[in-house]
Amino acid sequence: MSAKRYLFTPGPTTVPPEVLAALAEPVVHHRGSDFRAIYAECLQRLKQIFRTSSDVLLFTASGTGAMESAVANLCSPGSRVVVVSAGSFGERWIQLAERYGCEVEAIRYEWGEVPVADDLASVLGDASDVRAVFMTQSETSTGVVADIQALAAAVRPSGAHVVVDAISSLGAVPLDVDAWGVDVACAGSQKALMTPPGLAMASVSDAVWAPEGSSSSPRFYFDWDRTRRAQEKLDAAFTPATSLVVALNVALGMILDGGLEQTFERHRLLGRACREGAKAMGLELFSPDDESAAVVTAVSAPGGVDATELVALLRDRYGVQLANGQAHLKGKIFRIGHIGYYDVFDIATALGAVELGLADLGADIERGIAVTRALDVYAEGAKV
Amino acid sequence: MSAKRYLFTPGPTTVPPEVLAALAEPVVHHRGSDFRAIYAECLQRLKQIFRTSSDVLLFTASGTGAMESAVANLCSPGSRVVVVSAGSFGERWIQLAERYGCEVEAIRYEWGEVPVADDLASVLGDASDVRAVFMTQSETSTGVVADIQALAAAVRPSGAHVVVDAISSLGAVPLDVDAWGVDVACAGSQKALMTPPGLAMASVSDAVWAPEGSSSSPRFYFDWDRTRRAQEKLDAAFTPATSLVVALNVALGMILDGGLEQTFERHRLLGRACREGAKAMGLELFSPDDESAAVVTAVSAPGGVDATELVALLRDRYGVQLANGQAHLKGKIFRIGHIGYYDVFDIATALGAVELGLADLGADIERGIAVTRALDVYAEGAKV
Repeated sequence: MSAKRYLFTPGPTTVPPEVLAALAEPVVHHRGSDFRAIYAECLQRLKQIFRTSSDVLLFTASGTGAMESAVANLCSPGSRVVVVSAGSFGERWIQLAERYGCEVEAIRYEWGEVPVADDLASVLGDASDVRAVFMTQSETSTGVVADIQALAAAVRPSGAHVVVDAISSLGAVPLDVDAWGVDVACAGSQKALMTPPGLAMASVSDAVWAPEGSSSSPRFYFDWDRTRRAQEKLDAAFTPATSLVVALNVALGMILDGGLEQTFERHRLLGRACREGAKAMGLELFSPDDESAAVVTAVSAPGGVDATELVALLRDRYGVQLANGQAHLKGKIFRIGHIGYYDVFDIATALGAVELGLADLGADIERGIAVTRALDVYAEGAKV
Repeated sequence: MSAKRYLFTPGPTTVPPEVLAALAEPVVHHRGSDFRAIYAECLQRLKQIFRTSSDVLLFTASGTGAMESAVANLCSPGSRVVVVSAGSFGERWIQLAERYGCEVEAIRYEWGEVPVADDLASVLGDASDVRAVFMTQSETSTGVVADIQALAAAVRPSGAHVVVDAISSLGAVPLDVDAWGVDVACAGSQKALMTPPGLAMASVSDAVWAPEGSSSSPRFYFDWDRTRRAQEKLDAAFTPATSLVVALNVALGMILDGGLEQTFERHRLLGRACREGAKAMGLELFSPDDESAAVVTAVSAPGGVDATELVALLRDRYGVQLANGQAHLKGKIFRIGHIGYYDVFDIATALGAVELGLADLGADIERGIAVTRALDVYAEGAKV
């Protein structure tokens, strides 16, 4: 295997050396004054990244923990909820809501399709008894980024709470939590936030904290009220993953120093370069061929090539880790994540590896065509 | 403030440099072959530390997450459970069980008292409808280490599941999960396992997996069956805190290389040195004055001294972080954790700081008496 390793999956993502260095700092006590200062700064920076004036609750957990917190804190057995699902992570909302005894209405799209706000508006109709609508901003399994602003607007007349899985999208593509009326946005440390996995977040709008906001579902570790009361005193409810919080704070500082809008623009440009490079090889995109697809590029494996084999070969022979398709797409597509600590040379490396790997598997690819096209597109875009 | 910092709380604890270095390694993908090898080794090593042939489930969470998993997976609303509580963490079991709608019978002791197996046997009587008995091995709030072997034996006739919070004790004092008939033991990475906080574990005995083992409580992230099935394939159910797993694996290797029995003996000796040093200053122990108290030494603040003030002074003036008392013991006791990556010079540093701090606060302490006595006791004990 190649000695050098490249992590180009849609999460976990590569972590900057500055963040790794912070991880290796001596452990501090979570109730000590030095940690409290970092914790306060981290919580404040999260609000800026979420673009909210409400609380962002921080959990030591995978992103799914934040998703479960939304279901457990908002829904009681029998709660009517709607889920917009167009892939693996939309299905996770359905599983979670069913597990908590909700009456779930699922709006299901084919994997790879883009959810349509009008569909959601029709399903909601003039219903006023829907507790929450769950949706996915970046469907990591397909590369589709949904129009959360439009979907949230479609929910508004119903008064239902808008809950967004923004795990792979937060910090990569715009999410205006307050301006768009998103009640709950869930995120994780290991995607665009450039930190190892282990921290999950949920922004919770002031509307949710109203008295009727509490559900009868049992919960303790993921209880929002307990977490909020503790955070207000800068005192985590339970011993947090202090090293990860220190690291996250460094990463958030880097993102905010670079500018959120500039970060979004970089992701858009990298997505464009990746798509154009893949197409230059003659490959077919599975994710949408438009500017929305700024998080993950999903590519259909060319005829005769098994994506499972390609992903394994790239990892074992070239040290380049891409992602396979999930569920029924396994072996049919491969996915290149361009999230977080990522630049055009990473796109070139990923595409260069695909060129080499496909040639190894017998495909007829003009050497350098994808890399050349990606650099070209990047140079054009960066000029603007 | 002193430039050098010393973390002597009962968790998080100081992490060895080798473990910090592992944390700073580049992030790897959790489904890649390199992580799987580490994950497999880590899960295997956990079984050795828990002394069980059953599964040890690994969660990305604080220790409380593992505790909640026990309640959620074992209990349904109305389940009859018994809790042995003698401090802050015993009370946590009660809160958790109540939150899940259990019918809770609490056996409460004064904080600082040692639970008695006969009390538990009398409460259980000839009951056969108790679903689980929850207990705490090391009550971090008081320094008491309960006799789990005797408590578990007292439960056996009832057929109830034995569930132990071993968060601050696992790897510090003996816990023979299989031999003692412990069905579930919960632990965390940030105590004797010498790793930053963020990973929680629950060993689950084969008896629990029987068909009647599943409860009706809603759960997803902490679902045991989902976690076990995923671990069997070395494929975490949700993106784990990969960096922490890599670090934990290094720490577990260090513990097993040093020998578990040797580690327990070191903790016993350090506890003895700490107690004798504290007594040499004329201070009164709050934790038991016997060999069982090998995890945390709790000391009553001497007359006229507020423990809150002492702990703050030691931190701010000397860089030495001890722990205050919790709840009604706040200001009345201070606690020295001697857990994990800890040796006799750490005891000497902790006691030396207490000598200086108490003198600063006007107490009349003979300079060096505690440190001298601790070194003496250690030297005697190490000779044996």
